[in-house]
Amino acid sequence: MNRKQLIEQIRKKQSFLCVGLDTDPDLIPDCLKDHPHPVQEFNKRIIEATHDLCVAYKPNTAFYESRGVKGWEDLVQTWKLIPQDCFSIADAKRGDIGNTSTRYAQAFFDESLSGMSFDSVTVAPYMGSDSVKPFLAFEDKWVILLALTSNEGSRDFQFLKSDDKQLFESVIQESRSWAGSDQLMYVVGATRGEAFTTIRKWAPDHFLLVPGVGAQGGNFAEVCRYGLNKDCGLLVNASRSIIYASKGSDFAEKAREEALKMQQEMAAELRKIDF
Amino acid sequence: MNRKQLIEQIRKKQSFLCVGLDTDPDLIPDCLKDHPHPVQEFNKRIIEATHDLCVAYKPNTAFYESRGVKGWEDLVQTWKLIPQDCFSIADAKRGDIGNTSTRYAQAFFDESLSGMSFDSVTVAPYMGSDSVKPFLAFEDKWVILLALTSNEGSRDFQFLKSDDKQLFESVIQESRSWAGSDQLMYVVGATRGEAFTTIRKWAPDHFLLVPGVGAQGGNFAEVCRYGLNKDCGLLVNASRSIIYASKGSDFAEKAREEALKMQQEMAAELRKIDF
Repeated sequence: MNRKQLIEQIRKKQSFLCVGLDTDPDLIPDCLKDHPHPVQEFNKRIIEATHDLCVAYKPNTAFYESRGVKGWEDLVQTWKLIPQDCFSIADAKRGDIGNTSTRYAQAFFDESLSGMSFDSVTVAPYMGSDSVKPFLAFEDKWVILLALTSNEGSRDFQFLKSDDKQLFESVIQESRSWAGSDQLMYVVGATRGEAFTTIRKWAPDHFLLVPGVGAQGGNFAEVCRYGLNKDCGLLVNASRSIIYASKGSDFAEKAREEALKMQQEMAAELRKIDF
Repeated sequence: MNRKQLIEQIRKKQSFLCVGLDTDPDLIPDCLKDHPHPVQEFNKRIIEATHDLCVAYKPNTAFYESRGVKGWEDLVQTWKLIPQDCFSIADAKRGDIGNTSTRYAQAFFDESLSGMSFDSVTVAPYMGSDSVKPFLAFEDKWVILLALTSNEGSRDFQFLKSDDKQLFESVIQESRSWAGSDQLMYVVGATRGEAFTTIRKWAPDHFLLVPGVGAQGGNFAEVCRYGLNKDCGLLVNASRSIIYASKGSDFAEKAREEALKMQQEMAAELRKIDF
């Protein structure tokens, strides 16, 4: 999905919600425990219940890898379940030297090899340009680069100041030359509301993937105030608050209710900017 | 494998060689192409031919993931092939927020869930302490943290100076409080020979995993001069120069020849420090 198509979906659905499919087998409702593929069935029902309210799905690969080969099978099947009109994100936080990053890119972008072709993958910036560029060599595929993350540990290195710029600013400034805003997004945690003005100084046009609203305590209103741009420019992710809204057999229904609440808040924000 | 056992193996084998199992199906000799599991068979024969000459094996997960479920099966089987007296490294360069990093740790450390239990995993430091600590919660398991990598792109961020310390120095200084030298190693590229003195200032006791000797052009003598410590303190990795030493049916034999050359150079270096 390219930038234009993504913006069209946001306009059509009046939503910039991304649903995080961080599906933890321990938290799946009892009613699915006897299903031959509980994770796949859970994801299927969550997607059916929410796809008209969100514009993106983001499985975090850790929750799949932790169960080895079976988990990887669930990841492949989950990718297949994501509707064509939703932007798909492999939240994998990969990154390695050039020829190896190409292999990671194949894992998430080349269906003929890996069985999956996500629209985008999250990538860690530590190893620099040649660890990121191999992903960008795939046409119409996106890199979502970690800039400022939502966890406590982000304070350890991401705010280190060099030549008056914090590390996350250097990451954005430097990486802008690797690709345009049609192939590159940034991860910016919602727990850092005040930082959005700094981020928008360096990346006025880029889409930002914003985790940390909901369970992690980020402030949605602040994110919108400082983060929205003329093309919307935000994908706000919610995982646990939606997919685990209920532990009962009504889990999909409750997930929809939570997604709907968020979509309505988003529609109100989009109206403010006449989107 | 704990630190004492690793040092014993180095002493016994007079080697600090790590063989990188970056097994690329496109580069597997023709004689294995009709095998039902070419990657597994290739790795099996490489391991049989080299295990008395090296102390560690390091499959890079990218080469397995790129082939989806089948590749992940090959990774699990490859882990099983690594002998008990060799240190096993999942070169995965993972890292995510706390509860998610726990899942990554399970993927590589918890055999009951994932089918694999490597001794160690490589981790990217960008997200800070709480992205690394979940791996360290596993007893006798190691984190090998990216510090200074061997690729060109390492110049983009790893050398940024803050308070007179370059980023890779801050990573080492900060992370030393997360675990001791019995659970934490650092990745330091051999292409940065001159940096080893700086690294040893911050991490005199830690083991360093050193890629970039061989195909990437690093200087083995410099690495030893500045990197060796009283417990050896180095694991030098070679991948392509060993596993692709021949494209013929003698690939395992030629791999052994290359590994033997390196083991002999290592034995000579260890004699210099009376190890």
